[in-house]
Amino acid sequence: AAESSVALYGLVDMGMGSTHVRGPDGDRQKKTGTISGGLSDTLLGLKGQEGLPGGWSATFQLETMFDGSTGNYNDEDRLFDNAAWVGLANESYGELRLGRQHTVAQELGGELEVASWKDMGMGATFRASDNHSVDNAVNYFSPSWGGLRLGLGYSFDVAGDQLNGSKLPSYSAGVLYEQGPLLLAATWDKTLLKNSGLEGARDPQAWQLGASYDFEVAKVSIAWSRQKNGYAGLNGGDPSELGLGLGAAEFAYGGHLDAYLLGVAVPVGGKGTVVAQWSLVKPDWSWADGAKARSGQVATLGYVHSLSPRTNLYAMAGLARRYSLDDQLVQGQGTTTRYMAGINHSF
Amino acid sequence: AAESSVALYGLVDMGMGSTHVRGPDGDRQKKTGTISGGLSDTLLGLKGQEGLPGGWSATFQLETMFDGSTGNYNDEDRLFDNAAWVGLANESYGELRLGRQHTVAQELGGELEVASWKDMGMGATFRASDNHSVDNAVNYFSPSWGGLRLGLGYSFDVAGDQLNGSKLPSYSAGVLYEQGPLLLAATWDKTLLKNSGLEGARDPQAWQLGASYDFEVAKVSIAWSRQKNGYAGLNGGDPSELGLGLGAAEFAYGGHLDAYLLGVAVPVGGKGTVVAQWSLVKPDWSWADGAKARSGQVATLGYVHSLSPRTNLYAMAGLARRYSLDDQLVQGQGTTTRYMAGINHSF
Amino acid sequence: AAESSVALYGLVDMGMGSTHVRGPDGDRQKKTGTISGGLSDTLLGLKGQEGLPGGWSATFQLETMFDGSTGNYNDEDRLFDNAAWVGLANESYGELRLGRQHTVAQELGGELEVASWKDMGMGATFRASDNHSVDNAVNYFSPSWGGLRLGLGYSFDVAGDQLNGSKLPSYSAGVLYEQGPLLLAATWDKTLLKNSGLEGARDPQAWQLGASYDFEVAKVSIAWSRQKNGYAGLNGGDPSELGLGLGAAEFAYGGHLDAYLLGVAVPVGGKGTVVAQWSLVKPDWSWADGAKARSGQVATLGYVHSLSPRTNLYAMAGLARRYSLDDQLVQGQGTTTRYMAGINHSF
Repeated sequence: AAESSVALYGLVDMGMGSTHVRGPDGDRQKKTGTISGGLSDTLLGLKGQEGLPGGWSATFQLETMFDGSTGNYNDEDRLFDNAAWVGLANESYGELRLGRQHTVAQELGGELEVASWKDMGMGATFRASDNHSVDNAVNYFSPSWGGLRLGLGYSFDVAGDQLNGSKLPSYSAGVLYEQGPLLLAATWDKTLLKNSGLEGARDPQAWQLGASYDFEVAKVSIAWSRQKNGYAGLNGGDPSELGLGLGAAEFAYGGHLDAYLLGVAVPVGGKGTVVAQWSLVKPDWSWADGAKARSGQVATLGYVHSLSPRTNLYAMAGLARRYSLDDQLVQGQGTTTRYMAGINHSF
Repeated sequence: AAESSVALYGLVDMGMGSTHVRGPDGDRQKKTGTISGGLSDTLLGLKGQEGLPGGWSATFQLETMFDGSTGNYNDEDRLFDNAAWVGLANESYGELRLGRQHTVAQELGGELEVASWKDMGMGATFRASDNHSVDNAVNYFSPSWGGLRLGLGYSFDVAGDQLNGSKLPSYSAGVLYEQGPLLLAATWDKTLLKNSGLEGARDPQAWQLGASYDFEVAKVSIAWSRQKNGYAGLNGGDPSELGLGLGAAEFAYGGHLDAYLLGVAVPVGGKGTVVAQWSLVKPDWSWADGAKARSGQVATLGYVHSLSPRTNLYAMAGLARRYSLDDQLVQGQGTTTRYMAGINHSF
Repeated sequence: AAESSVALYGLVDMGMGSTHVRGPDGDRQKKTGTISGGLSDTLLGLKGQEGLPGGWSATFQLETMFDGSTGNYNDEDRLFDNAAWVGLANESYGELRLGRQHTVAQELGGELEVASWKDMGMGATFRASDNHSVDNAVNYFSPSWGGLRLGLGYSFDVAGDQLNGSKLPSYSAGVLYEQGPLLLAATWDKTLLKNSGLEGARDPQAWQLGASYDFEVAKVSIAWSRQKNGYAGLNGGDPSELGLGLGAAEFAYGGHLDAYLLGVAVPVGGKGTVVAQWSLVKPDWSWADGAKARSGQVATLGYVHSLSPRTNLYAMAGLARRYSLDDQLVQGQGTTTRYMAGINHSF
């Protein structure tokens, strides 16, 4: 039988930074202060596994995110926002997990991310890889077959109570292939809006495809995502007030966008890493007044210094050009600039 | 001096199931999806004891329930819904506990339960044994005197702020006798509604009486409960919108009901248990239109398979006939059918 | 490198007591029941430090308060109300902490407190030493230089979201000198109300100065605080509905008050301590009708009996004369009497 363990773990990431937003209408806002989760999300969790006979084990994870600047919950209704699942795993057959959890696409697609800066990571443009979880979910992850892993997920209702008849189920699937320095990933997501109350809404879907390779002098990651009919994770902004996090109405009602990502991480000295990441978003729709939606970009450059395996210092500069960190693509498409530095400590 | 310990513990129970409700008015609802707490409540807690000289010890417990399907709190206002108490215990004199905690009747009466299926356990009809806690409470539990244990509890105000003068105090008492395979339990609850704002409301009371015997080939449990003037734990439904969880108005304003329980657990093979439980509820009142309230029943049949002392798989079928799992006895008295299977893992 | 550790800790303090309030308008209220946090706040936390090379260490603390009578959060929006910070410390240079945390004035000034009885401790009148935390904060604490420690703190915004332009930043500073039985403390707080929306509001400030000396037969503590233009911690009552916790309008708009504290702790027997604490508050303003604001007093007498280093029993009597525990100085200035006894257990 495998070993058993239960671990209380967490991560506190706090920094100071300055964020300048020039909105679509040209007005400017500046926020200088502490920032929680600059390099990675501030969170607290419990996870465990119990070895059972025959190569089986029982597993669970409970995890919540919070904001270190205020002590607030990320989602105040949820005790465990990120994860609240129990699973049964077998060395030969894989693992089945039941409960609130990340989508398969996020778990696998997120492996391509090089720079996870707050609001400006891969998830800024590849929403299917942004940190989000779905309710009422069943995920299956295969074991590694010669480096190949497969995941399949279904949520009976991504974000609501099923009894009122307004279920919004979703599917998520992905494959990951790891061989030495090479990693390949492909994922697909679909959410069914039939019961959403939005007249004429089509089901949003997201595909992600990418590769990373560790050349030792640098690790390079490239990826592409097509997202159509709005964000499949219902985790976008809601500038048109559709109520579901689908993004702008022009996107949700039949639009699509392509996102491209290039990330490079270069080790420097014994303990430092320079990380650069750039992504481009190309929408295909026109706004209500006929103007064509324009491309947006998110670019970051940063340095991470390891004090220990558990503790890092970091500094970064980021630019979201013609792209809103809250609402993604909106007409007028303002620009955000951010500088920050901080400490990232896990336990 | 006794030993000291502090333990972080929890239980994650997730399953999948299908629930069919035919309401009093004949409309039907079906919910298929994940279910949290199918076999026992999903929860997280901390408990400890510190050995002190002279046979004394200090004790505490902090415990919260949550829904693994969504990560939500059971009660979002409460960090610790089930328990938040500190106590002082002595081997010879017993234990005094101060803070939010289960009633004495629930602690002792719950020992009679054979099958704790979500919504369909003993507490479905024996509300005084259903999982609920009271605020501002002081409970005393005696040590075991030759197998006999006594409990006495008082809450200064079961669910509210005391300063506005609307205190609802409650009493709870019980005895438990354990001798080898035999267990006998008797409990009594009373809540004072004088300050409830309900004109003419009488104080709800609940008696419970039961026995269980472990014949080795089977464990059998029988119990009876009389509940009058509404549910004493204020943990019933509120179909008449009285605002206090007393159950239907006809019950709260002078009605009473008798509930009967029969449970059998039969070990099969080395690791399995077949559990069957049936309860009958006989109300004595008539509805506003003169129709006599009819009896309801809750019956379950299930199988629990132990993978380890910490992990079980389960499957069950349940029927609540002329009984509402949300509102208990309501006119028209719909029927609920449920099938589910899941995994129950504690740590 | 220093050692590394992570600790889950907590304190559950529950008692029973009776509180009599005679309000400014002469009406009386009485509350008898359980009390959470009688001797010290009921709380739960996680803290840790990781030793790093060169005398450095990474530190963090996450802490929340709750009410054991109800299991409720102290502040239901916050997962970690008291502390949610990460820091970097050096034996020679001191420690920098980022995140939600107590003010420097509270950390250092609180050392003067002799009797921390709920609602009637030093913080009842010395609000800058009352338990409160600020959002978006950066605190620096020096190492001990021959017994002298210095703290400097800044909050970018004590209690709000910075993006709407309504930042309320605050400063906090203090020095502490410890030499054998002697302790000296001085602190200063200032909160900037420029963006508060209160017309003509001046920035509230608080000074605290005090000393304590342990004569072995008794420990004596004396302190003085001047608070002007309202409570700098925005943690006072709000009888005039200004919306910011500044205290009464006459105080907030240019008034000031002096508070004096005298505390004595006398060890008795091997395990007991008699604690007496008295404070006087002298306001300088007149109420709207021309009546001069009168002095208030808070006096307590109690006994704490140690069962172990982790567990204490206590009993106390307290009187707040012409002083409101909720609203501090209000016209008419009612009186509160409290008796309570309880158990205080830490883990």
